[in-house]
Amino acid sequence: MDKKPNEVLVSMKNVEDYVLEIITMLNQGAEEVEIKGVGRDIGKAVDVYNMILDKLGNGIKLDSVSIGSESRDKKRLSFILLRVKKVY
Amino acid sequence: MDKKPNEVLVSMKNVEDYVLEIITMLNQGAEEVEIKGVGRDIGKAVDVYNMILDKLGNGIKLDSVSIGSESRDKKRLSFILLRVKKVY
Ligand SMILES: [Zn+2]
Repeated sequence: MDKKPNEVLVSMKNVEDYVLEIITMLNQGAEEVEIKGVGRDIGKAVDVYNMILDKLGNGIKLDSVSIGSESRDKKRLSFILLRVKKVY
Repeated sequence: MDKKPNEVLVSMKNVEDYVLEIITMLNQGAEEVEIKGVGRDIGKAVDVYNMILDKLGNGIKLDSVSIGSESRDKKRLSFILLRVKKVY
């Protein structure tokens, strides 16, 4: 699963940084943002979603949640993919 | 969200221990098992699901994935809830 336009890979930065990045994307016209977390960052990706929900409330909708695993450096890592849509 | 029958809270034990516990529940007649992970154990809950999928393949179906947050000791923690059903 490659990084796509409007996909935010949650990793080393603070939760707040990803939240700001995603809210900015939505404010600048993105209809949908995918929040991805891999391995030990899966929980952080959910933290990011919950904080966005706090801030935007009914302005967003969780369109889907996918989980699975993917290979990286010959290791298999779990991932989560949260698809968030803007609501008008 | 309180712990329900057939809900497995992923926490301190090894991934393999939870996998064995859940497969045993399914073998002993459980139609559905809920795998829950809270906070930093969210990723581990997804690891548990992926390992069960490896072992049981088409014998299970991921019925739903829920995410959210809940309060614990006055802190708010993210959670994931994976509902896995047996397929006959
Ligand atoms: Zn991807």
